[in-house]
Amino acid sequence: MGEAVRVLEVALGDRAYPIVIGAGLLSVGARLVPYLKRKKAVVVTNTTVAPLYLDLLTDALAAEGVSCESVVLPDGESHKDWQTLNLIYDALLGSHAERSTTLIALGGGVIGDMTGFAAATYQRGAPFIQIPTTLLSQVDSSVGGKTAINHPLGKNMIGAFYQPRLVIADIGTLATLPDRELKAGLAEVIKYGLIRDPAFFEWIERHLDALLARDPEALAHAVEVSCRNKAEVVAADETEQGERATLNLGHTFGHAIETGMGYGVWLHGEAVAAGTVMALALSKRLGWLSDVEIDRAVRLFARAGLPTKGPVLGAQRYLELMRHDKKVADGQLRLILLKGIGRAVIHSGATDGEVCAAIEACCE
Amino acid sequence: MGEAVRVLEVALGDRAYPIVIGAGLLSVGARLVPYLKRKKAVVVTNTTVAPLYLDLLTDALAAEGVSCESVVLPDGESHKDWQTLNLIYDALLGSHAERSTTLIALGGGVIGDMTGFAAATYQRGAPFIQIPTTLLSQVDSSVGGKTAINHPLGKNMIGAFYQPRLVIADIGTLATLPDRELKAGLAEVIKYGLIRDPAFFEWIERHLDALLARDPEALAHAVEVSCRNKAEVVAADETEQGERATLNLGHTFGHAIETGMGYGVWLHGEAVAAGTVMALALSKRLGWLSDVEIDRAVRLFARAGLPTKGPVLGAQRYLELMRHDKKVADGQLRLILLKGIGRAVIHSGATDGEVCAAIEACCE
Ligand SMILES: NC(=O)c1ccc[n+]([C@@H]2O[C@H](COP(=O)([O-])OP(=O)(O)OC[C@H]3O[C@@H](n4cnc5c(N)ncnc54)[C@H](O)[C@@H]3O)[C@@H](O)[C@H]2O)c1
Ligand SMILES: NC(=O)c1ccc[n+]([C@@H]2O[C@H](COP(=O)([O-])OP(=O)(O)OC[C@H]3O[C@@H](n4cnc5c(N)ncnc54)[C@H](O)[C@@H]3O)[C@@H](O)[C@H]2O)c1
Repeated sequence: MGEAVRVLEVALGDRAYPIVIGAGLLSVGARLVPYLKRKKAVVVTNTTVAPLYLDLLTDALAAEGVSCESVVLPDGESHKDWQTLNLIYDALLGSHAERSTTLIALGGGVIGDMTGFAAATYQRGAPFIQIPTTLLSQVDSSVGGKTAINHPLGKNMIGAFYQPRLVIADIGTLATLPDRELKAGLAEVIKYGLIRDPAFFEWIERHLDALLARDPEALAHAVEVSCRNKAEVVAADETEQGERATLNLGHTFGHAIETGMGYGVWLHGEAVAAGTVMALALSKRLGWLSDVEIDRAVRLFARAGLPTKGPVLGAQRYLELMRHDKKVADGQLRLILLKGIGRAVIHSGATDGEVCAAIEACCE
Repeated sequence: MGEAVRVLEVALGDRAYPIVIGAGLLSVGARLVPYLKRKKAVVVTNTTVAPLYLDLLTDALAAEGVSCESVVLPDGESHKDWQTLNLIYDALLGSHAERSTTLIALGGGVIGDMTGFAAATYQRGAPFIQIPTTLLSQVDSSVGGKTAINHPLGKNMIGAFYQPRLVIADIGTLATLPDRELKAGLAEVIKYGLIRDPAFFEWIERHLDALLARDPEALAHAVEVSCRNKAEVVAADETEQGERATLNLGHTFGHAIETGMGYGVWLHGEAVAAGTVMALALSKRLGWLSDVEIDRAVRLFARAGLPTKGPVLGAQRYLELMRHDKKVADGQLRLILLKGIGRAVIHSGATDGEVCAAIEACCE
C-alpha cells in the first residue's frame, strides 16, 4: 500500500508553508501540532463533513493536548455569505479566542474559503490551517491563499489573500466524496496539464480510469502534481498580477455558465470543463491549436464524465456575463488561451466576433 | 501664512506611502491623481462630513478627469459595523467598480477604519487613500494600516492590516471639528511625547494654547511630528509583534473605561488620557517615574481639557474588562509603562494588587 507521505513546499518567503499529502493523515494530531501557535484551535466544518471526520480530527488533537472547539456550518455554496461567516466570528468571540488561536478548515472549498477569510480578519489575522476534503479543494482552493465570501451581487467579491501555515490533503477523505464532486475536481486536475504540464496531461490520459476508481496511489500523485503546479505559479505571482491568471483557463467562460444558469445548477468544475473547451475552440480559431490537440482535451473531459458543451444562453448573453467577471480590466476581456497543450497565454486582443463564434461552436 | 506642505514617508518597502500635511489640500485634485491606479474613485464619507467637504473633493477630482462616485454613511461609532460596511460593498458592486478603483476615506477614524477594511477586502484588495478630517485620525488612525469594524462582542474585532497608497491630512478641515473631538485628538498627540519623544513633549507644553486655539502652524507641526513618530514605530513593527504595542500607552486601562461606561459615553481620547494617568501611576509605584514627571503629564492633560481620573467602576471590574482586551495574550496583562518621559516599556510582570492600587489612586 502506498503509505508514503508526500510533502511539497509553497515558496512564499516568510509565508512559506508545506502541503502534506497522504492517506489517513487526519487522525495524526502530531502532524498539526508543530504548526499551531498555541495549543488552541477552532475547527470549522459543515453538517456533511462533521459526522464523517470531525471526531477523528478533534480526538487526534485532544490526544496531543490541544484544546479544541468546533463550529459546524450549514452546507452549500449558498451559505458562503456574511451571515454564515458571522457564525464563525460569534464562536470565536463567544469562546474568547485570542488572535493566537489557530483556525482549522475541515471541508471543501466553501469551508476553506470562508474559514480562511475569517482567519484573515479575526483580530486582523489569526493562524490558519487547511484540511481540504474534496478533490477540488485539495488540488486548487486550499493552495494559494485566496479566501472569500460571496456578495448578493457577485461571487467571491469580498475576500483577502491570506496564506495558511499548513495544508493537509488526506486522500482517504475522498472515499466518501460524491461521484459528481470527484469529477468536478478532475476538471481542475486536467487544467494543470493543459496550461503548463504536458507530461502530466499524458499521465492523466493513461491513469484516468484509476483516478475515477479512486485508486489512492493515483489520487495522491494527481494531487501532488497539481499542487506542485499551482504552488509554482503562486510563488511566482502571489496576488495575480501576471502568470497566476493562467490558472483561470476556462474560468471566464465557465463563470458565464455558472451565473447564466443560476449558481448551483452546474458545479464549478463542470462549468470550467465546458468553458475550457470554448477557450480551446477560440485558440484553434486563432490558429494556435490543432484539431488533434483539441480532440485530446475534449476526449479526456468526456471520459472524466464532464460536459464538453455549454448550455445555449446565446453568445451575446455569454459576452455580457463574461464582462461582469472580476477578472475583466477596463471592460477589456482578458482570456486565457492555449498555444499548444501545456502552453497557456494571456490574450486581450480577441474580437467579440471571434469570441462569439467560439462560444456558438461549443453550445448545445 | 504657513502654506508650506510637509511630506513624510512611511517606510514599508513596496508598500511605502507618503503622508502629506498642509492647509487646503482637499481642493487640489492634482495631489491625488498620481496615486490613483486608474482615473476612477469612490469616496466614502458620512452625513456630518459630506456637507462640509465632499463637493470640494469631488469637484477637485472631476477637474482632473477622475470619475467619482460617493457613499455617504450614517455618522457614529455605533455604525462601525457589518451593516454599514455592506453599504460600501453595495455601492461598489452596484456601480460595477473594478478592483483597480480607488477607495478614498473622507472623515474621521470611523470612516477611515471602515473604508480601509472595505478596500482590503473588496475583490481581495482595492487601492486606498486616506483623507482624515479629525485630529485623532490625522495623528493616529490614518497611519499604520490598521483597519476594522466592530462586532457586537468586541470593538475592532474584525479587520485587516492594509496600507493606504497616500494619506492627505488637510489641517484646514480641523476648523470645523467640535472642541471635544479636538481635545480627544490631543490625548494621542501627547502620547507620542510620553512614549518616545521628550523634546516633542516639551514642545507641546509650550504650544498647547496655540493648539487649542487651532493655530494652523502649530497644528501642522503637531500632526507632522505625531505622524513621524507613528510612522517610525510602524515601519519597525508593522503587525504589532513588539515595539508597536507601545503606541497603546493608556489604551488597556482606557479600553476598560470605554467598555465599562458603555461605548460613546467617553470619547476614545478621553479614556486614553485617564488610562495613561493610571499607567503612569503604576510606573511610579514600580519606582520608574518621579512625582515631577507624573505631575507634568497630568498637568498637560488637564490643560488640554482632558480627564485625568477614571470613573469609579471598582478596581476588580477594571481588571476584568482589561483582561478582555485583545491586546492580552494568554490571560496575562501586558501593559505599556514608562521609565521616564519619552521611554515606554512593555511590562507583563505587574501583580493584580499593583494594578488595582494604581487604578484606585486614579478614580473619582
Ligand atoms: N480559494 C481558491 O483559490 C478557490 C479555487 C477554486 C474554487 N474555490 C471555491 O471553492 C468552492 C468549491 O469547492 P468544492 O468544490 O470543494 O465545494 P464544496 O466545499 O461545496 O464541497 C462540495 C460538497 O462535498 C461535500 N464534502 C466535502 N468533503 C466531503 C467528503 N470528504 N465526503 C463527502 N462529502 C464531502 C461538501 O459538504 C459539499 O456538499 C467554491 O466556493 C469556489 O469559489 C476557491
Ligand atoms: N486604525 C487605527 O490605527 C486607529 C487608531 C485609533 C483609533 N481608531 C479608530 O478611530 C475611531 C475614532 O476616530 P475619530 O476620533 O476620528 O472619530 P469619528 O470618526 O467618529 O469622528 C468624530 C466626529 O467628528 C465628525 N467629524 C469628522 N471630521 C470632521 C470635521 N472636519 N469637522 C466636523 N466634524 C467632523 C465625525 O463625523 C464624528 O461625528 C474609532 O473607531 C477607533 O477605533 C483607529
